[in-house]
Amino acid sequence: MLTRCLARTAIAAIRPALARAPVQLARVAGAVQSPRAFSTSLARFSNESLSAKLAEEIKFEKDSNDPYAEPEFLTNFKEEGVWKVEDADGADEIALTRTFGGENIRIIFSISDLDADADIPADAYDEETGADAGSGGLGDEAAGNAPGVPIETSITITKQAGGAVTIDAVAQDGMFTINNISFYPDADVALGMSSEDDWKRQGLYMGPAFDNLDEGVQTEFEEYLEERGINSSLALLIPDLAEWKEQKEYVRWLEGIKGFLQK
Amino acid sequence: MLTRCLARTAIAAIRPALARAPVQLARVAGAVQSPRAFSTSLARFSNESLSAKLAEEIKFEKDSNDPYAEPEFLTNFKEEGVWKVEDADGADEIALTRTFGGENIRIIFSISDLDADADIPADAYDEETGADAGSGGLGDEAAGNAPGVPIETSITITKQAGGAVTIDAVAQDGMFTINNISFYPDADVALGMSSEDDWKRQGLYMGPAFDNLDEGVQTEFEEYLEERGINSSLALLIPDLAEWKEQKEYVRWLEGIKGFLQK
Amino acid sequence: MLTRCLARTAIAAIRPALARAPVQLARVAGAVQSPRAFSTSLARFSNESLSAKLAEEIKFEKDSNDPYAEPEFLTNFKEEGVWKVEDADGADEIALTRTFGGENIRIIFSISDLDADADIPADAYDEETGADAGSGGLGDEAAGNAPGVPIETSITITKQAGGAVTIDAVAQDGMFTINNISFYPDADVALGMSSEDDWKRQGLYMGPAFDNLDEGVQTEFEEYLEERGINSSLALLIPDLAEWKEQKEYVRWLEGIKGFLQK
Repeated sequence: MLTRCLARTAIAAIRPALARAPVQLARVAGAVQSPRAFSTSLARFSNESLSAKLAEEIKFEKDSNDPYAEPEFLTNFKEEGVWKVEDADGADEIALTRTFGGENIRIIFSISDLDADADIPADAYDEETGADAGSGGLGDEAAGNAPGVPIETSITITKQAGGAVTIDAVAQDGMFTINNISFYPDADVALGMSSEDDWKRQGLYMGPAFDNLDEGVQTEFEEYLEERGINSSLALLIPDLAEWKEQKEYVRWLEGIKGFLQK
Repeated sequence: MLTRCLARTAIAAIRPALARAPVQLARVAGAVQSPRAFSTSLARFSNESLSAKLAEEIKFEKDSNDPYAEPEFLTNFKEEGVWKVEDADGADEIALTRTFGGENIRIIFSISDLDADADIPADAYDEETGADAGSGGLGDEAAGNAPGVPIETSITITKQAGGAVTIDAVAQDGMFTINNISFYPDADVALGMSSEDDWKRQGLYMGPAFDNLDEGVQTEFEEYLEERGINSSLALLIPDLAEWKEQKEYVRWLEGIKGFLQK
Repeated sequence: MLTRCLARTAIAAIRPALARAPVQLARVAGAVQSPRAFSTSLARFSNESLSAKLAEEIKFEKDSNDPYAEPEFLTNFKEEGVWKVEDADGADEIALTRTFGGENIRIIFSISDLDADADIPADAYDEETGADAGSGGLGDEAAGNAPGVPIETSITITKQAGGAVTIDAVAQDGMFTINNISFYPDADVALGMSSEDDWKRQGLYMGPAFDNLDEGVQTEFEEYLEERGINSSLALLIPDLAEWKEQKEYVRWLEGIKGFLQK
């Protein structure tokens, strides 16, 4: 139905675009007056110098660290043998999957939140957290208190016996904060990967705002997820994993553009 | 085309997600620091206690009122015999349909606006309307003046002779406020229910902002809709109907989650 | 994947809906209290008077200027023989295409930004730019400094040898401001016109925020686009072209609605 197009997307935690919109607007507005807006008229063929610049960047990124090498924290995480990591080259998303009794659990998160965050000036955090302003306050502490990047995650639990729940939650600073929990009588609807599947999901009731639930129910839901390994250490790992993925995709992007120019 | 994905969705009144985005952001931001964010590490099996809590909630909701019983206002509305109510279990939307001469009229609205509204503190309204601030002002009056929840509706009128118009309008406090009116030479494009149909609609000109039209034209459009029964009493009914539907879906959700846990 | 639905849309410059959301909210909020909200109960058949009003508007618009006539700036632009203009009746978008060596270049932009802009009060600009406030300031100058409407554009460059890049950029006041650059190993993914294609694009890494790139790389990218004719004069033409298209579609809309009423 007409309604579906965006009906659920703002609440659905895994769709981070809306959360970024204000940032994006700020950026566009600022950029218009910035020296980065280009209006000079140049006519030389610049493929070569752009390629050279990209090669420099690739070298710079690779010199400091091999972006494709698996970081130790990820190796350790995999060795725990609980979660399987699905990380496709070029994808915007990573999926973590596991089984738990008769359940299959899938957590998807996108790396696009990271880039948006990079645009927020560090000062914005100081202002928010700025508790230590006033006499005796230490400016440096504010930086130490800056919150980590929030990563929106979509957690789907399906049962072999049928049915699914999808929990939209934000992972940040070692905590998952739940936004809402959807229930799907049909697990295929919850897991479907096509644009049409997404459209269908958007036509369904998405559950109440988690905040509006009875506090006892909230606590029990949190314990339900903890029991499934959706806990503090996973909430710490996800942003690190997103950052590593983003860096890797950035270098792949530099190489992809460079290769494209040289074709 | 690339442009279509969201090109029309902000204006289209029936796609409420964008209207909710700021609310959502506020909620996420707040939640991060709230005690509801879970970080404790618990390891006991909590299915049973979660199920028990859900059972309590279901009992509580059903004790006060049978959520599945048709409310009197809806029975009366149906008995008028003008509009047919399409209300599918689990759906996020309700459709009202009627014929008018050679025309078919369909109004779709989503219940997801309601939940977002619940997150807006009551004070926010006071500030907006806060006319009675100052000496002698009565704080209580402000609450009485709080506007009802705005429900975005998509009204499509098709003719057997061909063509369609879709009016995006907000129903609130007994008034419809029109945002824009689209014209479709092909009625099937207006009515299509798939993700691809929606994409196609987004690629079409959506008509001018209603506010920008000549005032005489605006008035005539409003009378045109009045004539078709899209009037004050319908604008009062729609939020009530959305609230009843939302409560019903909430209880169904409680039961669905509980059943899922116990599988 | 679930994430895709909006994952990329905020950044993607050609999807302007998000940029309009706050405007839309403001309008809805305002409209609720405005006299344009209709609540009177009228019962006369108004098709005829609405048709008559629409006829008046059509006459008014056509008297001042033939909206379907190609404006001189567009004729001149076409005569340059560089860009081909794809402008389908009823579409929300215009595409400009050209070849450049072994490359195909396509620029798509939507006219829906224009209408949203019309809702922003002129004062909003004064406040932003308000440099001449204070003694001796000339209010009129502020109006002269009001920025033009920003038009979001999606620029896709494909090579016969394979691959594609899509640059999301805003055209405003004779400047293109780049938001981000995506790289697609498969050009078909970049160019696909279906809802499913768009969904697939949203599942891919969209490249870093342009602002976050090394300044030297930014400059080279800008020169790369300049070389392909994506320059200051094109950034001036696009808003003019959008405005003409919007006026033409508005008159077509008036005629379409009038025809529909009279069927």
